[in-house]
Amino acid sequence: MSTGRVLSALNGRNLVLPAVMKPATPDTFPFPWVRVTGDRIFVSGHGPLTPAGSLAAPLGKVGSDLTLDEGYVAARLTALAMMASLVDAKIDLDRLTWLRVFGMVNVAPTFHNMPAVINGFSDLILDLFGPERGAHARSAVGMAGLPFGIPVEIEAELLLDVAGPT
Amino acid sequence: MSTGRVLSALNGRNLVLPAVMKPATPDTFPFPWVRVTGDRIFVSGHGPLTPAGSLAAPLGKVGSDLTLDEGYVAARLTALAMMASLVDAKIDLDRLTWLRVFGMVNVAPTFHNMPAVINGFSDLILDLFGPERGAHARSAVGMAGLPFGIPVEIEAELLLDVAGPT
Amino acid sequence: MSTGRVLSALNGRNLVLPAVMKPATPDTFPFPWVRVTGDRIFVSGHGPLTPAGSLAAPLGKVGSDLTLDEGYVAARLTALAMMASLVDAKIDLDRLTWLRVFGMVNVAPTFHNMPAVINGFSDLILDLFGPERGAHARSAVGMAGLPFGIPVEIEAELLLDVAGPT
Repeated sequence: MSTGRVLSALNGRNLVLPAVMKPATPDTFPFPWVRVTGDRIFVSGHGPLTPAGSLAAPLGKVGSDLTLDEGYVAARLTALAMMASLVDAKIDLDRLTWLRVFGMVNVAPTFHNMPAVINGFSDLILDLFGPERGAHARSAVGMAGLPFGIPVEIEAELLLDVAGPT
Repeated sequence: MSTGRVLSALNGRNLVLPAVMKPATPDTFPFPWVRVTGDRIFVSGHGPLTPAGSLAAPLGKVGSDLTLDEGYVAARLTALAMMASLVDAKIDLDRLTWLRVFGMVNVAPTFHNMPAVINGFSDLILDLFGPERGAHARSAVGMAGLPFGIPVEIEAELLLDVAGPT
Repeated sequence: MSTGRVLSALNGRNLVLPAVMKPATPDTFPFPWVRVTGDRIFVSGHGPLTPAGSLAAPLGKVGSDLTLDEGYVAARLTALAMMASLVDAKIDLDRLTWLRVFGMVNVAPTFHNMPAVINGFSDLILDLFGPERGAHARSAVGMAGLPFGIPVEIEAELLLDVAGPT
C-alpha cells in the first residue's frame, strides 16, 4: 500500500502537479502520455506546463529567448508535468524507479550547456525519489526545434515495482 | 497461428509494403533494421521509401522544402518502411504491440508543428493495429539534419507476443 | 567466469580505454554513466574522450569544424569511452549484448552523412563483440548542438547475460 511518500515530498516543497495537457482536438495527439506494459513504463515527450495544463511561458530557444536559468526552470516544470501524467495514468509514484531520461533542449546556435538545463529535471527527480529510485541514465542534447517552440522536451523510461513499494 | 490481420488491413486500404532498402555496399549500414531479444524488438531509424526500396522524394526540410502535408505523407511512408523491415525479419505483424515511437522531423527554422507531421505515422499504425496494440508513447521533435536529407526518421520499440496472437 | 575476451581484443588492437570523465563538481552531472536494472543496461550519452578522460579535440560541427573522417574517429573514441564506463560500473564486457544505439552528430547545415560518422562506433563494436553480441538497432541523426561542442554523442541500451558468458 502506498504511503504517498513522493506526493508528501512534493507537498513539503510547496510543489503542485499541473493539470494534464488536453489538446485542442482528439486528433492532435494520437498517443497516450504514458504507455505501460508489465513492469515497464514509457513516457512520451513532455514539456513545461502551467498549473492549468497549458504550455508554460517563455517559449523559444535557450541561449537567445531564454536564459540558462529559465531553461533550468522549464526542465523542472517538465518533471512536474511528467509526474502529473503518471498520476493521471493511475500509477503510484512510490512504486517507480527511473531508468532512462532523454533531455532535449531547443537551443540557440551558440548555446552549449544542455546538461545544466536538464539538471532542472534531474535535480528535482533525485530530490523527490532519492538516490536509488531517482537515478537515471541520461542524455542532454540540442534540438533544431521542438513542438510549438517549447524550450525543453523530455522523454523517459521507468520501472514499475509490481510487488508494490517497500 | 497468424490470421494475417494486419496484412489484410494493409490490403484493404490498397497499401503495399516497400522493398527493404539495400545500401550501396554492405559497409554502408553496419547494423540490422530490426534487433530482437526475447520479447523485445528494437527498430532502427527508418525513413520514407519508394515501393522499390529507395529513398522517397521529396527530400529536405519540412517547412521549406516540404509542406506539412508532404511531411505527413513522409511519416506515413516511414511506417510502411518499418513494417516492411519487420516482415523481412520474419516477424508476424499480428503478434506486435507498439511501445515507443521516437519521431524526428528535419525542420526549417520556423517550423514548429512536428506532432502534425509524425501523426502520419501514428494515424496509420493505430488504423492498422487498433487502439490496444497500436498505442505508443511518442516524442516528435525537430532535427538539424537527417541522413541524405530525408525529411522524417523514426525509430521504435515494440513487444513481441511470444505466445502468439489471440 | 570471464575469459576477458573483449579486453583481449582491445589489447590485440592496441586500444586503451580512457579514464572515466570526472565533472568539475559533483553537481555538474547528477546522473550515472550507466544504469543497470536486472539484465537491462542503459548507458547515458557519451562523447569522445582523451586517455586521461577529458573531452577529446577537435570540438565542433562535422562538415565544418571536423571532416567526415574526424567525425568517424570521434565516434570510435565514443565507443571506447562507453566501454570504460561499463568497466568502471563493474560490468563484465564479455557478458554484454548490444541492443540499441542512438548516434547523434553535431552537424553543419550542409552535412548529410551521419551514418558514415556513427559507423566509427558501430564498426569497432562489431569488431570487438562479434556479429551476434555486437549487432544493434541504430539511428544516426543530426543535432543542432551537443554539450560543450562535442561532435558526437551516443547513448545505448544493452542486455546483460545474467547467467554469465558462455
